[in-house]
Amino acid sequence: MTDNRLNPITAAINNAGLDAVAFVPGPNFRRIFGRDFHLMERPLVVIIPRTGAPVAIVPNLEMASFEHLNFPGQIFDWRDEIGYAGAFKDAATALGEIGDAPRIGLEAQRMRVFEQFALQDVLPNATFFDAHAEISAIRLCKTDDEIALLKRAIEISEEALEKTLQDVREGQTEKQIEGMLLNNLFACGADGLSFDPIVAAGDNAAQPHAHARPDYQVKSGDALLIDFGASYQGYNADITRTFFIKDVSDYDRAFYETVKAANEAGKTATLAGVTAHNIDDAVQLVLENSQFAAFARHKTGHGLGLDVHEAPQIMRGNHTVLETGMVFTVEPGLYRSGECGVRIEDDIVVTETGHICLTSFSRELRIVG
Amino acid sequence: MTDNRLNPITAAINNAGLDAVAFVPGPNFRRIFGRDFHLMERPLVVIIPRTGAPVAIVPNLEMASFEHLNFPGQIFDWRDEIGYAGAFKDAATALGEIGDAPRIGLEAQRMRVFEQFALQDVLPNATFFDAHAEISAIRLCKTDDEIALLKRAIEISEEALEKTLQDVREGQTEKQIEGMLLNNLFACGADGLSFDPIVAAGDNAAQPHAHARPDYQVKSGDALLIDFGASYQGYNADITRTFFIKDVSDYDRAFYETVKAANEAGKTATLAGVTAHNIDDAVQLVLENSQFAAFARHKTGHGLGLDVHEAPQIMRGNHTVLETGMVFTVEPGLYRSGECGVRIEDDIVVTETGHICLTSFSRELRIVG
Repeated sequence: MTDNRLNPITAAINNAGLDAVAFVPGPNFRRIFGRDFHLMERPLVVIIPRTGAPVAIVPNLEMASFEHLNFPGQIFDWRDEIGYAGAFKDAATALGEIGDAPRIGLEAQRMRVFEQFALQDVLPNATFFDAHAEISAIRLCKTDDEIALLKRAIEISEEALEKTLQDVREGQTEKQIEGMLLNNLFACGADGLSFDPIVAAGDNAAQPHAHARPDYQVKSGDALLIDFGASYQGYNADITRTFFIKDVSDYDRAFYETVKAANEAGKTATLAGVTAHNIDDAVQLVLENSQFAAFARHKTGHGLGLDVHEAPQIMRGNHTVLETGMVFTVEPGLYRSGECGVRIEDDIVVTETGHICLTSFSRELRIVG
Repeated sequence: MTDNRLNPITAAINNAGLDAVAFVPGPNFRRIFGRDFHLMERPLVVIIPRTGAPVAIVPNLEMASFEHLNFPGQIFDWRDEIGYAGAFKDAATALGEIGDAPRIGLEAQRMRVFEQFALQDVLPNATFFDAHAEISAIRLCKTDDEIALLKRAIEISEEALEKTLQDVREGQTEKQIEGMLLNNLFACGADGLSFDPIVAAGDNAAQPHAHARPDYQVKSGDALLIDFGASYQGYNADITRTFFIKDVSDYDRAFYETVKAANEAGKTATLAGVTAHNIDDAVQLVLENSQFAAFARHKTGHGLGLDVHEAPQIMRGNHTVLETGMVFTVEPGLYRSGECGVRIEDDIVVTETGHICLTSFSRELRIVG
């Protein structure tokens, strides 16, 4: 029942002084088992104990897919008409050796409360901890294969963006532009979307997570912020560029160039051995020392891979030391409420001597439409 | 501070004997406030007390969007560099009047464990309950406007499916067919995908939640199962049809016709006043009384609306009485492991006298390719 795939998880359990961890389908599950399942109303939970064999609670209708995992432990399936309580109970019994008052780490940013309640019901003496960071640490440093897949997701995304820009015209709605982008993404080979794209112009660009409006026509002088990404074999691109429609004021140009300088500063500061805090600090200092200091609103970026927002979070206060193979976004932004927003986002890999930028789409101020 | 939008939630709190409910962005949030936010590593939580004003904990970078909600209570925003613990603490203090040992209902199939931990930290004497059903009950019966949006999502989906079938050929891979479908969905006006489509042929169709294979070419005699849906303004289509490539054996034809009869039986049994159990029973009896009884694996269906899988679950044991305006899927399937799978899924609305079928794509056995 030993399985090399579980070694990094077992190491995490020991390091964190836990008796077991529990997790659900998603990026960590996929990294370990090479496959994924949808999260829905049917719980699918895997529990890996410090010692002894793992257990899995699996909806019966997923069994044909689950069998491909070669899961190295007992599987307790359950059927819709019976419910899942019994499968959780049997799984807990099989785990008996984890002790009377086990300390169980959960994938807490992914697992939902009803799954924890189901665990709690059958392990009433357990104490549950947030072990999301410890479990996800298995994905912090990317392999060459993973970086190749990210590159492909990014190539597809950049090709789709360029195609879209060719067709952007003054007078189109944000929603129309979003539609063109979606079409182009799938035509260029996207498997899916990393997330619902943000296509926001004018005052809407000042909302970092805006929704495209069906009734707003882009007009001369507007910023057009596009934050999007294709997914490819599970790996997610995440790119933002900001353009201007027809024209740009001197003030907005200075605004844009400040963000661009902050983006550059973040990439330049990146190197194995420095901390996530250092990168954000370099970025924020550019913004804070500019005339636009009041318009900064968020951290520099986040890790990127099988998940769109994962560790390391690139922000002040996070003293995680960067290692070769970590991948994250550098995405400073400035937002003048009701007027204009600019964000420029690259995806980079940490190396011994600096970084490799996976995104290559130009960051020079570009007029479109 | 009274807000009619919260009346159904307040009613749910009273009915369930709770002191408050807490929920996060998603279908319920959108139904109440008309807008949605992505769930990510930054918690956004709303707490509605039985009496007194609600509170919201909101990431600072979402504030510009959040302001559009006209949230009827205090908002506690937090910034990346500070973290969210303080905002939760201040929100709990503002909620003081909910009592020393409040009973708090959670949207447990949606809220993640780390959000509950954050609540628990600042409300250490609270007891938390799974109130997902009670909160989601506000969405059980659809308005005419909601049904119109579902219809539009379904129209887009069916148009995309027909376009795709025109181009399906023997020898294409499942992945190629999936790519065509995705392209067509966005070309036909989809805002997004209800879920990653399932395009599965031959033995893969026998896995109810299969993934399209890049290396499997569809061949004569294969079943081709396509389960997919466009989303439109937040509302989700969910349709399955199963076709055969070039040819179909007599055995597979009988297999198909059994599923089709079960689908018919489910729709025919539907009527306001009968229970979800009754519908599933009618469907399962067709399968169980056929020569293919051993190949049934799952319940009849699930509610559909702003969420893809919502109440009512159409399964034996669920004695929820169906009401006019409830929308759900009728999707019986049969799966012969390693050989063939068939599922036929419609989306229907319950009426006083029966049902309205929103999906209109033909269910007659169709040979393609």
